[in-house]
Amino acid sequence: MTSSQKATLTPPTFELKPYLLDRQSQVEAALDAALPMAYPEHIYESMRYSLLAGGKRLRPILTIASCELLGGNSQMAMATACAMEMIHTMSLIHDDLPAMDNDDYRRGKLTNHKVYGEDMAILAGDGLLAYAFEYMARATTGVPIDRILQAVIHLAKASGAGGLVGGQVVDLQSEGKPDVTLETLAYIHAHKTGALLESCVVCGGIIAGGAPVDLQRLSQYAQNIGLAFQIIDDILDITATSEELGKSAGKDLQAEKATYPKLLGMEESQRRAQELVSTAKDSLNVYGAAAQPLQALADFITTRRN
Amino acid sequence: MTSSQKATLTPPTFELKPYLLDRQSQVEAALDAALPMAYPEHIYESMRYSLLAGGKRLRPILTIASCELLGGNSQMAMATACAMEMIHTMSLIHDDLPAMDNDDYRRGKLTNHKVYGEDMAILAGDGLLAYAFEYMARATTGVPIDRILQAVIHLAKASGAGGLVGGQVVDLQSEGKPDVTLETLAYIHAHKTGALLESCVVCGGIIAGGAPVDLQRLSQYAQNIGLAFQIIDDILDITATSEELGKSAGKDLQAEKATYPKLLGMEESQRRAQELVSTAKDSLNVYGAAAQPLQALADFITTRRN
Repeated sequence: MTSSQKATLTPPTFELKPYLLDRQSQVEAALDAALPMAYPEHIYESMRYSLLAGGKRLRPILTIASCELLGGNSQMAMATACAMEMIHTMSLIHDDLPAMDNDDYRRGKLTNHKVYGEDMAILAGDGLLAYAFEYMARATTGVPIDRILQAVIHLAKASGAGGLVGGQVVDLQSEGKPDVTLETLAYIHAHKTGALLESCVVCGGIIAGGAPVDLQRLSQYAQNIGLAFQIIDDILDITATSEELGKSAGKDLQAEKATYPKLLGMEESQRRAQELVSTAKDSLNVYGAAAQPLQALADFITTRRN
Repeated sequence: MTSSQKATLTPPTFELKPYLLDRQSQVEAALDAALPMAYPEHIYESMRYSLLAGGKRLRPILTIASCELLGGNSQMAMATACAMEMIHTMSLIHDDLPAMDNDDYRRGKLTNHKVYGEDMAILAGDGLLAYAFEYMARATTGVPIDRILQAVIHLAKASGAGGLVGGQVVDLQSEGKPDVTLETLAYIHAHKTGALLESCVVCGGIIAGGAPVDLQRLSQYAQNIGLAFQIIDDILDITATSEELGKSAGKDLQAEKATYPKLLGMEESQRRAQELVSTAKDSLNVYGAAAQPLQALADFITTRRN
């Protein structure tokens, strides 16, 4: 038996940690290169300040992983992956504004408007939103253009009033209300966090040329991890310290926000998050070992501490 | 001689007024249909409030006219034309915010944040920006997708930090400075107003399948009317009343903004605007009578009173 045959018979266990580190550094480099400095420097600095502020880069990594799951590669997916992080960053910059959530810290650093002023922060968000579409449409290579256009449509929809903008609207409207239902809370999460996560995963599949049934499975997976992600976020807001989170802890309680722990209790929230992750993983079992990265990422989401 | 032969020999003079009225009502109907109400209603109301607040609809009309110039039709161009107005509206909503130009009135109506609050106004702008790309990419019919993708790239570039966002940044930075040069002023106008006008005209040409030389001519035409448009805007800010403008007159003087009348004098500004319009019209002479709508639109821009 040759060593290559042996490798086929006993596939190595998938190691998430080196995988994440490797992908994170690829994504960091790609983001840095995607948005070089230009005139007027002030706005590019502001955009780069938030875009390159670190973070787990889960969204672009999901895009690359789902593209690879369906036979594509990271090069095909990278511009779309970067666009996902641009949209995510844009939503954080605008959410942190005084007129919205009024946050001073994000990922352990001052928020964009605290450094560059409110006017620049609004414009930096606008710039990143527009650039996400320019960049994915222009810089994607080796992918048929019908897929690129389909991904643009999907991401634009996830970013707008039917997606994360709509989720933020209902979130703001629900603040301080004592009678927010579980249904409304699910709407907020499915849109404010879920829509973009779903778009990350599905667009990776679109770029790879996935069939409708593949995209359907990826969408199911993503919706489930999206909700789990948000439940964990609610839990961490209560259990983690500000230092661990890199942002103010306990903000939800202060703002009298409806959260899963508040509506369901801590234990039931934990149980539900784990159930969602389990369902998410199951929906990709059909792909066998190729699904390991996405399945490990689903687990990672419920065990994270920040 | 039949009447049809007679018509060929003496082409009717192009009448701008009925043309504008006809196109305006087409565009109004298309915009209304493009953005129907949905949940969460509050954000759709806010987006529709500004998108359907009237105005001359010059930008979408330019898109349709340049598409027709190169053999396309209004149906092919309409979704892109609507996207142009969505981006324009988004930039007005965000520019009017207290953190930016702090305007209470726009087109004779309260600005978006005065009606819906700052948080909704920021989100309405974000929603319109994202929807512009979704809508043009999804709702354009009868056009090869490579053209649609090319138009998406062009519009996204014009909307971002290299376009209107960049123009607004330099405009804000120049406010109150006594030493703003003509070069900086030209940059502001070429980006804050010019980039989107150019995109309107060029994307109409892209949708029609124009050759590079056609797009080059359209770009020249658009850059010239764009600058003329802004010079006239500066002049009207001084000469027109708030009632005529539908917004606060004299804002530029109050804000100590650099303007063409201030840097060049009123007479020279007028002369320069007319020269730009004349050059713009000349660049389309090669198309003969087919260029009449775009040429008449160029004249309209310098004779407008609001």
